[in-house]
Amino acid sequence: MKPNAHYAELKDSYLFYHIAQKISAYLAEHPGAYLYRMGIGDVSLPLCDAVIGALHEAVDDQADKERFHGYMPECGAPFLREAIAAHYRSRGVQLEDDEVFVSSGASDELGDILDLFDRDGSSLIMEPAYPAYVDANVMAGRKIIHLPSNEQNGFLPMPCEAAKADLIYICSPNNPTGAAFSRSQLKRWVDFANENGSVILFDAAYEAFIEDDICPHSIFEIPGAETCAIEICSLSKTAGFTGTRLGYTVLPKALVREGMSLNEMWVRNRTTKTNGVSYILQKGGTAVFTPEGQRQIRENLRVYKKNARTLMQALDALGIWYCGGENAPYIWLRCPGGMGSWDFFDFLLNEIQVIGTPGEGFGACGEGYFRFSTFGSPEDTQEAARRLVSLFKQDCR
Amino acid sequence: MKPNAHYAELKDSYLFYHIAQKISAYLAEHPGAYLYRMGIGDVSLPLCDAVIGALHEAVDDQADKERFHGYMPECGAPFLREAIAAHYRSRGVQLEDDEVFVSSGASDELGDILDLFDRDGSSLIMEPAYPAYVDANVMAGRKIIHLPSNEQNGFLPMPCEAAKADLIYICSPNNPTGAAFSRSQLKRWVDFANENGSVILFDAAYEAFIEDDICPHSIFEIPGAETCAIEICSLSKTAGFTGTRLGYTVLPKALVREGMSLNEMWVRNRTTKTNGVSYILQKGGTAVFTPEGQRQIRENLRVYKKNARTLMQALDALGIWYCGGENAPYIWLRCPGGMGSWDFFDFLLNEIQVIGTPGEGFGACGEGYFRFSTFGSPEDTQEAARRLVSLFKQDCR
Repeated sequence: MKPNAHYAELKDSYLFYHIAQKISAYLAEHPGAYLYRMGIGDVSLPLCDAVIGALHEAVDDQADKERFHGYMPECGAPFLREAIAAHYRSRGVQLEDDEVFVSSGASDELGDILDLFDRDGSSLIMEPAYPAYVDANVMAGRKIIHLPSNEQNGFLPMPCEAAKADLIYICSPNNPTGAAFSRSQLKRWVDFANENGSVILFDAAYEAFIEDDICPHSIFEIPGAETCAIEICSLSKTAGFTGTRLGYTVLPKALVREGMSLNEMWVRNRTTKTNGVSYILQKGGTAVFTPEGQRQIRENLRVYKKNARTLMQALDALGIWYCGGENAPYIWLRCPGGMGSWDFFDFLLNEIQVIGTPGEGFGACGEGYFRFSTFGSPEDTQEAARRLVSLFKQDCR
Repeated sequence: MKPNAHYAELKDSYLFYHIAQKISAYLAEHPGAYLYRMGIGDVSLPLCDAVIGALHEAVDDQADKERFHGYMPECGAPFLREAIAAHYRSRGVQLEDDEVFVSSGASDELGDILDLFDRDGSSLIMEPAYPAYVDANVMAGRKIIHLPSNEQNGFLPMPCEAAKADLIYICSPNNPTGAAFSRSQLKRWVDFANENGSVILFDAAYEAFIEDDICPHSIFEIPGAETCAIEICSLSKTAGFTGTRLGYTVLPKALVREGMSLNEMWVRNRTTKTNGVSYILQKGGTAVFTPEGQRQIRENLRVYKKNARTLMQALDALGIWYCGGENAPYIWLRCPGGMGSWDFFDFLLNEIQVIGTPGEGFGACGEGYFRFSTFGSPEDTQEAARRLVSLFKQDCR
């Protein structure tokens, strides 16, 4: 048996694993030190009451002979597919229920969905990017086209000859840069994909943070997207499901390549390779789409948005360049004094015990940049901001 | 973008989907008809109290700011990996915690794990077999070697020259035949795999049904398995988790091919392609491995085992050949009167409203055979057995 040799082509360690090691080493040297964790994008607020109530009810169902649920439909429970499709329709996007697939989360789905595509195809990855995009494509032995972005294009690159690829990954609002495509910018990508027969994998994990009307929450707000896009969504950041797990994918029936319906292929994939997502989690997720659930998750989102403003005010005060924070839970900043990403990581950890994420970990063009997440507690975020200002106020003005 | 053309090589419809269509058609013609469902292997008893209690507690944790859990470790929560490893040790199998990987279920894992292997390799599938084995390999474009089994070898084929393959699927106790390999039979497969450098994918989803001491619950009870086997397990049948979802995989560190550790590769796969399994479900699953949980799941298993005896007595009375039922929740019978599998399906549905699964759906050598599952209610199982006896008592004696 030969193993998949592409695994040997992966970079040595995964970004967040490397950060965890650095933190462990610091804590071993400084036992009991308190760290201000503005790094990994994990939420800190508990699930909202509507979700908790629905989860308890679903657990009770599983205890009762009459209400017990065995195998769920592989593509998702009808009640949740319907709730999600109705949510899209309420925002002006027409979807049928069976264009919605329930998943265990966006990460799981991004890993699995590559199975639909011919392996000899190419993948365009706009960088800096979520590292798993690259790693999943390396594991699959696909050709990767790296499209760097930068301050000049606001970390929002536009289509160009070099961007022609079979698959196009778009994450908007972006992880790590927090930059969000406007409707007209996204329209250019949709047109480009349709012209070239490409498929866009649209990672909408952070759509709930959008405040500007010019930025679409869904790629399906853009005419023509139904023939070129798959939208991968998550309740992780929207509703605090990072450790509870639930996501969904919109795969339109109009998405056909070489006579094959990608929707039908995905049905076949799910019925072969899964036995559906937990009834309990799907009941919890359905509560997110009720009026009460929507109101409650917005309360949590407001806390994170306030954290974003706290950090942005600190960076403004220091005159440090950044993007994101407005429509996204991430702030992407240029490391002060021309510092490298990992040097800046070490500097913040050692000087003010603030953890962020080195931009270099998201691709070569992220070198010299740094990501803050806004998912920490308000207290930690305020203290981290205060410490940042105090550390840099002389240097940066 | 070219789609994965291997999907076009899949057979038209998935077995259980085809059955569901036939049932729908019958119910459309016979509104309100009651059906005795001895077909799909879905459990009918609710989760046990220990699991329900743990699930409620975990939901409460997710409601509390201090006890809330965000992202779980991708390979599994330490508390569950430890509980599973301890469970193996209690049965005499030495495992380290990080040789255990928590999964969303055996189906999910069987689909995902092919990623570890070179795609140009071959897969040996002993037939009749769970249809997803074949379909997942077709989707991946792998070479499939079909190894038919039959009444003469008790539906337990032994290694032979034609069985040389990179991957060897073994499901014991078997779905659909209910046949279970003895320790000495399994030892021959382990030796064969080690001699040829093959990897065994051991599907242990039904191990909890084993009663004979000569049949191992885990392939790792066989010396040498740690250098050639991956064991894929599920709580679906063991603890009624079909709709709740949770499984685990044992991938030993001693399993190395061409210098690559499959355990390390799987860590990398999981950290790239998942964000871990739900905290809530992992807490529920951990309760299965407590003394109280073990006692309670055994009570449920006893109900299914009694169903098996009910059906076996009916088949014995009718003189119909069958295997399984002793160490498995499935009974595999020869269709009476030389009937074909699908004809027998239609016959039972139309004459006595009993649903089973046509053997042909599990591979060509299953033609002429039929599967009953023992997961129905005792009442339905007794009535189905009574109807069977009454239908065939003249023909088969």
